Amino acid sequence: VTRQDAERLDAADPLAAFRERFVLPVGVIYLDGNSLGALPRETARRVAEVVNAEWGQDLIKSWNLHGWIDLPRRVGAKIARLVGAEPNEVLVADSTSVNLFKLLAGALRLQKGRPVILSEANNFPTDLYIAQGLIELLGGGYELRTVPRDQVLEALDARVAVLMLTQVDYRSGALWDLAAVTERAHAVGALVLWDLAHSAGALPVDLNGAGADLAVGCGYKYLNGGPGAPAFLYAARRLQEKLRTPLSGWLGHAAPFAFEPEYRPGAGIDRFLCGTPPILSLAALECGVDLTLQADLTLVRKKSLALGELFLDCVQGAVPEFALASPVDPNQRGSQVSLRHPEGYAIVQALIARGVIGDFRAPDVLRFGFAPLYTRYVDVWEAVTILAEIMATRAWDQPEYRVRRTVT
Amino acid sequence: VTRQDAERLDAADPLAAFRERFVLPVGVIYLDGNSLGALPRETARRVAEVVNAEWGQDLIKSWNLHGWIDLPRRVGAKIARLVGAEPNEVLVADSTSVNLFKLLAGALRLQKGRPVILSEANNFPTDLYIAQGLIELLGGGYELRTVPRDQVLEALDARVAVLMLTQVDYRSGALWDLAAVTERAHAVGALVLWDLAHSAGALPVDLNGAGADLAVGCGYKYLNGGPGAPAFLYAARRLQEKLRTPLSGWLGHAAPFAFEPEYRPGAGIDRFLCGTPPILSLAALECGVDLTLQADLTLVRKKSLALGELFLDCVQGAVPEFALASPVDPNQRGSQVSLRHPEGYAIVQALIARGVIGDFRAPDVLRFGFAPLYTRYVDVWEAVTILAEIMATRAWDQPEYRVRRTVT
Repeated sequence: VTRQDAERLDAADPLAAFRERFVLPVGVIYLDGNSLGALPRETARRVAEVVNAEWGQDLIKSWNLHGWIDLPRRVGAKIARLVGAEPNEVLVADSTSVNLFKLLAGALRLQKGRPVILSEANNFPTDLYIAQGLIELLGGGYELRTVPRDQVLEALDARVAVLMLTQVDYRSGALWDLAAVTERAHAVGALVLWDLAHSAGALPVDLNGAGADLAVGCGYKYLNGGPGAPAFLYAARRLQEKLRTPLSGWLGHAAPFAFEPEYRPGAGIDRFLCGTPPILSLAALECGVDLTLQADLTLVRKKSLALGELFLDCVQGAVPEFALASPVDPNQRGSQVSLRHPEGYAIVQALIARGVIGDFRAPDVLRFGFAPLYTRYVDVWEAVTILAEIMATRAWDQPEYRVRRTVT
Repeated sequence: VTRQDAERLDAADPLAAFRERFVLPVGVIYLDGNSLGALPRETARRVAEVVNAEWGQDLIKSWNLHGWIDLPRRVGAKIARLVGAEPNEVLVADSTSVNLFKLLAGALRLQKGRPVILSEANNFPTDLYIAQGLIELLGGGYELRTVPRDQVLEALDARVAVLMLTQVDYRSGALWDLAAVTERAHAVGALVLWDLAHSAGALPVDLNGAGADLAVGCGYKYLNGGPGAPAFLYAARRLQEKLRTPLSGWLGHAAPFAFEPEYRPGAGIDRFLCGTPPILSLAALECGVDLTLQADLTLVRKKSLALGELFLDCVQGAVPEFALASPVDPNQRGSQVSLRHPEGYAIVQALIARGVIGDFRAPDVLRFGFAPLYTRYVDVWEAVTILAEIMATRAWDQPEYRVRRTVT
C-alpha cells in the first residue's frame, strides 16, 4: 500500500469535507477519537455564546429564554435520531455510570424474581462496578454473573433479569449484533441494557428496529461533545411508565417548580433527569451531535470499515509482529482496530512522542480509533509508517516511555 | 433611607472592588445570585482556553498535561477552604442530588439498625426526593420522617440514622446553627448530612470546627460556577474509609486505569467520584471558586447582613404591605431576604420586566438574594424603590405577568 493509494481514497471520500468542520492540531495524527472526540469548530463559538451572552447577560432568565431547561430533552431527541429511537426515548443526563445505575435499578425492580445481572467478563469496568454497587446496596438476593464473551448467549436463562452489554468492546472493538442478542435475551424474558459508548455516532444503531429495552451512551467519544460531556440514556417508550429511578432528583419530578414534598416521577423519559445539568458542557455536546447529524451514518460506517482495512493492510505489510486484538471480520468490529504487543505501553508512548495519538489499555493492547468525520486515509497510512519506523529502530525502548502516566 | 445613604455604604465597602471582576448586564439589578451566580470575567477567558487550547490542541493528552484528571480533587480542595474542611475532605462531582444519594446510602449502611432519615418538611424538595428514592430502592425497613422546622431537634432519637438538613432554607433563608445541631444529633448517635447549597461562598462555614460528618453543596449559586456547575461533597476524614458509595463508577476505583473487573473503592474522598466529570463546566466552577477565595468570608457575611438590613429598612418604609418570610433576626438568615405576598408571582414578573431580578417560590414567596461580591447597597435601594412604584401603580396587575414560565 502506498501513500498515493491512501491519497486516492481521500480524494474519493464523500465525507472528506467534514474534516474542515473540526479544529485539529497541526502535525498530529489523532487516532483516539474513541476516547475523546475532536473539537468541532462551531463548539468554540457556541460555548462562548452560552458563557458571555446567555449566562453573562441573561443570567437566570436563560433557563426559559434560551431553553436551558429543555436542553436534556432537546439534545436527547437529536441523539435519538442517531440510535434509532423516537425523540421522547432519549435523554441527556449525568454520566454513563450514573445512567447505568438508574436503568439497572429500574430494570431489576421490573424483573422481580429474577436475581441475575448477566454481563461479559471483559465489559468496560464501570458497567460492572455499577452493577456491583447496586447489588451491594440491595443487600443480597442479586448476583452479577460475568462470563466470557463466547458464553454470554448460552448463559441466558430464566434467572437473568438484565443482560448488560457494551455493543462495541472498548478494548478489542468487537461488535455485538444488537438485534440478534436482544432477540435471544427476550426469548428467556430478560431485558437488555446496551452501553453504546463506542457505537453512537460511529455506526448506525437501530434500537427500536431491534426491539431494544434500555441503553446508555457517552457524549465525548464519537459524538465529539467535549471532555466529560454529559451522557445519554434510552428507555423504550413501552417501558418508561413502568420504570422507577432511585435517583429521583427534582428535575425528574412531574412538576419540578411546584416544589412538592413528595416525589412524583415525570412523564415518560423526563423521570430520568436528576439534578441540574451542566449547561456549558451540554451546549458543547449539542454542537457535536448537530455535526454528526449532518453525516450519513451508513457512509460513516463504510468509511470506518475502509479505514480499518487500510490500517490492517499497512500493519500486515510493515509490522507483522503485532497480533490483532480485534476480530478479523471487519463486520464484527466497531470503529477501532486494536493490536497486541508485550511492549504496547512503550510503543504507544513512542508513537505519541512522534505525533501519532492512539492509546493503551492494559495489559498489552494498543488501540487505534477511526473517526470517519475527521480521520483521513492518509493519516492511517502515515500512522503505520511511523509505527514501522519505531519498531525498526527500537525507538520505543527508552526509559522515558516506560514512565506510567496517570491516565493511560 | 435615601439613595445617598446607600451610596455612602458602597463608598465604604471593603468588598466593592470585587464587582469589577464580574460581567453584569447594564440596566439590571440582579438579586438572584442565590439561584444562579453571575459570570466572573476570568471564566470566559478560562473556558475558551480549555476549549481551544486544551481540548482543541492537546486533545486526550490534556487529562495528564492540563491536570483534567485532578480537577475534581483540586477544585474540591479549594472549596474545602470555604467550608472549614481539609483539602482531602471535599470533592467536586456530579450534581447535588447525586451526591446526596451517595452519602445517604453510605450513611444508612454505617448506621445499621437505625431506620429513620430525619429531615425538615420544608427542606429543598430534591433532598427529600432523593431520600424517598433511596428508601424505595431499599425496599422497606427505612423511613423518611419530615417534621416542621421547630420540631426537628426534639425528633432526634436513637432511631435516627441520619439527620439531613439544608443549612440555609431555599425559600425563607432561615439559617441553622450548624455546630449546635450537629452536637444535638451526635448526642443521640445520629449522623448529620448538611446541604450547603445556599451557604458555601455566602457565609463562613466551619464543618470541621463543628465536628460535622457529611455535606453536599452547589457550585452555581454563591460559588458563581455557572449554570448547572458540578456540585461538591464533603465526608469527614474519620468516616471516609468506612463509607461505601453504591454509585461505584470507574473514576472512584482505587486504580481506574488498571481496568480491573472488581470494584475497589479509591482512597479516602476519591471513592466518591463516579463517572467522567464534565470538564468545561468544572473549569468554569474553578474560576468562581478562585474568585471567592480572594474574599474574606467574614467581610462577605458582614456585608450580606448589612445588605439584608438595608433591604428590610427600605421595605418597611416604602412597601410595608409585604410580610417577611425570613427570620426577623439577621443572624438567623443566610444571604437572602424573602417576602410574602398573595400576588407574589405577578409582582416578581413586573420587577423582572423593570430590570430587577429576584425570583418566586410557590406558593407566595418573593426571594431576593444578596451576593456581596457584586451586589451594591445602591442596587438594594433601587430594587425596593422600583418595587414601591410597582405596588403604588398596581403595575403588577397585568395578564402577561400571570403567564407561568417553565422555570420560576
